[in-house]
Amino acid sequence: MKTNKVRGLIAAPFTPMHENGEINLPVIDKYVDLLLEQGVTSVFVNGTTGEGTSLTLEERKIIAEKWIEAGKAKLDKVIIHVGTANLKDSQELARHAAKAGADMIGSMPTFFFRPASIELLVDYLAEIAKVAPDLPLFYYEIPEMTGVKFDMCHMMELAVQKIPNFGGIKFTSFDLPTFARCVDKFADKLSLCYGKDEQLVSALLLGAHAGVGSTYNYSGMIYSRIFKAAKAGNFKEATKDQIFSAKMIGVMFDEGFDVGVNKAVMQAVTGLPVGPPRLPLAAPSKEKIDRIMSRLKEIDFFEKRK
Amino acid sequence: MKTNKVRGLIAAPFTPMHENGEINLPVIDKYVDLLLEQGVTSVFVNGTTGEGTSLTLEERKIIAEKWIEAGKAKLDKVIIHVGTANLKDSQELARHAAKAGADMIGSMPTFFFRPASIELLVDYLAEIAKVAPDLPLFYYEIPEMTGVKFDMCHMMELAVQKIPNFGGIKFTSFDLPTFARCVDKFADKLSLCYGKDEQLVSALLLGAHAGVGSTYNYSGMIYSRIFKAAKAGNFKEATKDQIFSAKMIGVMFDEGFDVGVNKAVMQAVTGLPVGPPRLPLAAPSKEKIDRIMSRLKEIDFFEKRK
Amino acid sequence: MKTNKVRGLIAAPFTPMHENGEINLPVIDKYVDLLLEQGVTSVFVNGTTGEGTSLTLEERKIIAEKWIEAGKAKLDKVIIHVGTANLKDSQELARHAAKAGADMIGSMPTFFFRPASIELLVDYLAEIAKVAPDLPLFYYEIPEMTGVKFDMCHMMELAVQKIPNFGGIKFTSFDLPTFARCVDKFADKLSLCYGKDEQLVSALLLGAHAGVGSTYNYSGMIYSRIFKAAKAGNFKEATKDQIFSAKMIGVMFDEGFDVGVNKAVMQAVTGLPVGPPRLPLAAPSKEKIDRIMSRLKEIDFFEKRK
Amino acid sequence: MKTNKVRGLIAAPFTPMHENGEINLPVIDKYVDLLLEQGVTSVFVNGTTGEGTSLTLEERKIIAEKWIEAGKAKLDKVIIHVGTANLKDSQELARHAAKAGADMIGSMPTFFFRPASIELLVDYLAEIAKVAPDLPLFYYEIPEMTGVKFDMCHMMELAVQKIPNFGGIKFTSFDLPTFARCVDKFADKLSLCYGKDEQLVSALLLGAHAGVGSTYNYSGMIYSRIFKAAKAGNFKEATKDQIFSAKMIGVMFDEGFDVGVNKAVMQAVTGLPVGPPRLPLAAPSKEKIDRIMSRLKEIDFFEKRK
Repeated sequence: MKTNKVRGLIAAPFTPMHENGEINLPVIDKYVDLLLEQGVTSVFVNGTTGEGTSLTLEERKIIAEKWIEAGKAKLDKVIIHVGTANLKDSQELARHAAKAGADMIGSMPTFFFRPASIELLVDYLAEIAKVAPDLPLFYYEIPEMTGVKFDMCHMMELAVQKIPNFGGIKFTSFDLPTFARCVDKFADKLSLCYGKDEQLVSALLLGAHAGVGSTYNYSGMIYSRIFKAAKAGNFKEATKDQIFSAKMIGVMFDEGFDVGVNKAVMQAVTGLPVGPPRLPLAAPSKEKIDRIMSRLKEIDFFEKRK
Repeated sequence: MKTNKVRGLIAAPFTPMHENGEINLPVIDKYVDLLLEQGVTSVFVNGTTGEGTSLTLEERKIIAEKWIEAGKAKLDKVIIHVGTANLKDSQELARHAAKAGADMIGSMPTFFFRPASIELLVDYLAEIAKVAPDLPLFYYEIPEMTGVKFDMCHMMELAVQKIPNFGGIKFTSFDLPTFARCVDKFADKLSLCYGKDEQLVSALLLGAHAGVGSTYNYSGMIYSRIFKAAKAGNFKEATKDQIFSAKMIGVMFDEGFDVGVNKAVMQAVTGLPVGPPRLPLAAPSKEKIDRIMSRLKEIDFFEKRK
Repeated sequence: MKTNKVRGLIAAPFTPMHENGEINLPVIDKYVDLLLEQGVTSVFVNGTTGEGTSLTLEERKIIAEKWIEAGKAKLDKVIIHVGTANLKDSQELARHAAKAGADMIGSMPTFFFRPASIELLVDYLAEIAKVAPDLPLFYYEIPEMTGVKFDMCHMMELAVQKIPNFGGIKFTSFDLPTFARCVDKFADKLSLCYGKDEQLVSALLLGAHAGVGSTYNYSGMIYSRIFKAAKAGNFKEATKDQIFSAKMIGVMFDEGFDVGVNKAVMQAVTGLPVGPPRLPLAAPSKEKIDRIMSRLKEIDFFEKRK
Repeated sequence: MKTNKVRGLIAAPFTPMHENGEINLPVIDKYVDLLLEQGVTSVFVNGTTGEGTSLTLEERKIIAEKWIEAGKAKLDKVIIHVGTANLKDSQELARHAAKAGADMIGSMPTFFFRPASIELLVDYLAEIAKVAPDLPLFYYEIPEMTGVKFDMCHMMELAVQKIPNFGGIKFTSFDLPTFARCVDKFADKLSLCYGKDEQLVSALLLGAHAGVGSTYNYSGMIYSRIFKAAKAGNFKEATKDQIFSAKMIGVMFDEGFDVGVNKAVMQAVTGLPVGPPRLPLAAPSKEKIDRIMSRLKEIDFFEKRK
């Protein structure tokens, strides 16, 4: 089995699209280099930021293949998110990811029918894990989007018993005490990745192995500094950049933050043509993006991201 | 364009499955007759009760084809639910439904990314509607499951402007005053189908054209009596059966009602082998089903459903 | 013990206030007559519409006394709401209501600390009930405001066992099937009052004894016609007025409906000087009220309310 | 005006009660010493942990007076929580606190009627603040209980403009990025107190001035070590105790954590007779407390709290 050890910064990349909403695959080659330049070393493909649930299975496979091909020699880990609204589709993506050469896979829970207990959630994950037995499977916890909310520490206690290739967690919730208990219990066996960009430093303080984020795509250097300082034990130093990250994200929340806004900021900041999101999301108006850019400038964002 | 006029009782059928979770297609022939015997004249296929979101696209197509084939000569309308977590998949199912000979299609909104406004919701529905321009498209409102909650009357005001083949609504929420406003405004142009089994009579009183339900599958006679009495203006008479329906469903809610429990009750009551649900749902324990059956007997369910 | 039998229309009156927010007691004399002219025969004082939780205990007592005095000879029942955030205050109000000559009392559950089970809720209500043993105690179910949500039929099963003077329920929720089960089980012993103005007719169809509402204050004639027609078995007739009620309330929801808007509409429509609400509510802007009045005129409200 | 500067550990004390639910005032003398022995230097009286909303105004006044009297010479700050369901009661408590010699007051928002905007929330707070102009007023943010959720940084921007004696915040929510922005903007003028015991260290890392907690009452030494290490810049050291705190609180969450459980743990651990909570809360069963004590022992709680 491949190692489940992942460390450092993991971007959740946007899925580049043409103006007509079709995927724009060649952009991904440049995307890999852009991430590396910012200190981001791994990717979590087809997740929330990648609009995974808005893509067809065929599209998700093509995108996965492209990231694996473009990233193989350069990135540390290419993690493919295989979560969908149903088990069979997720299994198909898991099998594909294994065949295509992914390093790891991740899955959120189903989000229309929701598992009624930790047991059912783990049963569900086990069914995915077993079709890609050589790949570590990460659970993607993101209760704000899925509506699935359990004690993650208790979930992991069961998952390590029932799923031989259970690899760890991408924990996207503000609930740090639960994350702390997960770290305390599983840090030596599993990889614990924290997914709220705006409080990464606190998760690192608790012992997170990696950070996964969407704003890493265009402000990776900020998170690189946070990660480096934290790993060196300079938490106060890391916190300065973290507070800046909170302010930066605060600017976007004031305007109604979603993947549509996030993609537009990405394109405006880096020039990478990630294009618009798909329905039911929409690109923000030019006025909105101008306001965001202008407020980011006011807080010195363009200096800080260097 | 096909008519958008649907009247009477519409079952949301369970998807029959073998014990191993694979679909059990031949059961559908018998299923059609079972519904007709209970006074149910139309079906809404692959919706929530049909575990639509737990099926692959291929499975949804095969099931749609089977219901169309089996029901064509016997049922009034075969309505195919095409809602998924993303637009392209829903469009593919809409095109397929049209080609396969469906009478109508329906769609819920996307439920991972949720439309942020009525405008985005209607834009999304319009994109589905246009790939099946000869079929009426019904909106499937079910906020408890999707988390998408807008004023349906305002939504329909926009939908009728933007979507030539907008057909009406399957309204699955307790909010009758909003349904009343929809009926008041659109009853002459659109079909207004009400989806909460346990308060159908109130929707009929307001002018609902049709009822859509899951417990119709095994207690269709109860709803047939409600519908018939209501249409004859005997609302007090209809209410007796409605109160019984509320008590019957109350028994199941006491035990934790979901599609798994519902399928088990279907099988126990009618003998039709609909089998277990798919993960993340699970079949209830034998003890639980026995308790439900025993309480249903206590309230004379087996007499009432005749 | 006083009878727990209440029938017909119960207004939840606004608490009249001066512009400075102090209570304006003398208005209540005229208020009683205004209600009677509209066919409203009872009142539920110091509830949500009366801003009960925004008043001090002293104010609640004074208001209760005034309604009892002004209404005693004219109204059918003066029901005093004694619910507060804590048991002792509610007991004090219950004792006072008994002494002041109220016909009945009602209480919502505590809403900061919320009862964790039906048992704790009933224990709480029992403690209130026992300090006013001669008055029927009604439970005031309003989960949208309190966040306390249990199966009301199961709650009442326990309440009738544990509380000798348990009188019934003011059921303010859209969940009619649960109300149906309550009526089915308790209609002969308890009074079942329904609190959603916009779907009163459906509750009457199920067998509700009374309606309790806030828009009754200025459109009582509409609800009087609904009640009268429903009691005569003319549900279709009643439904016409009910659909109008839904449209009227829809106009206000479009503008953000709360007690502040409701009071302003009351004053604009009837001329009764109920004044502004207290913080944290606020009076709506003149523009907002003008828009509402103008839209109410468009739908012929001023004719319908006659 | 008194200083708004508060630093260190602030306990939210339980309100000691006799078995019959009446307050047990004399215990407070010993309580003060118990806190001091554990390194806790200030108190936030009559808040959530103190069951403030379950007490009458008279009781709240008596308890406030007692804490002021017992703590005056020994504690750093005695902060009186004056939040209630309505403005007039909160003003009365604010006036009383000022007269009784409190150092500061705090208020949650109203929680039955909830402010619809930041403006209305600040208007509400301003009305309280102005009746105790010499005392700093802290806002008590606890959205899980009140249902009132706004961006606290924007709220404080308005509060500092409109309320001369606005003193800071008791921030009880997991949302650290918002807290980070508050600290970044207001740390020099206001006091920023963090209220989630289980992630205090992260708030200290961001610059919190003080921690406010309920488990401080019986494990103050753990938080004292966290505070001391954090202030010395030894965040990794502080984190060890913080992870222990998360585990300890996790034990209680597994059993259904509320003020009733918390009081029982307090009494079992420290021997201080704080007694049972008031309805609608209840004391846990002996079995539950035994299970908690036994699990706390397993994780070495009784050593750690020394």
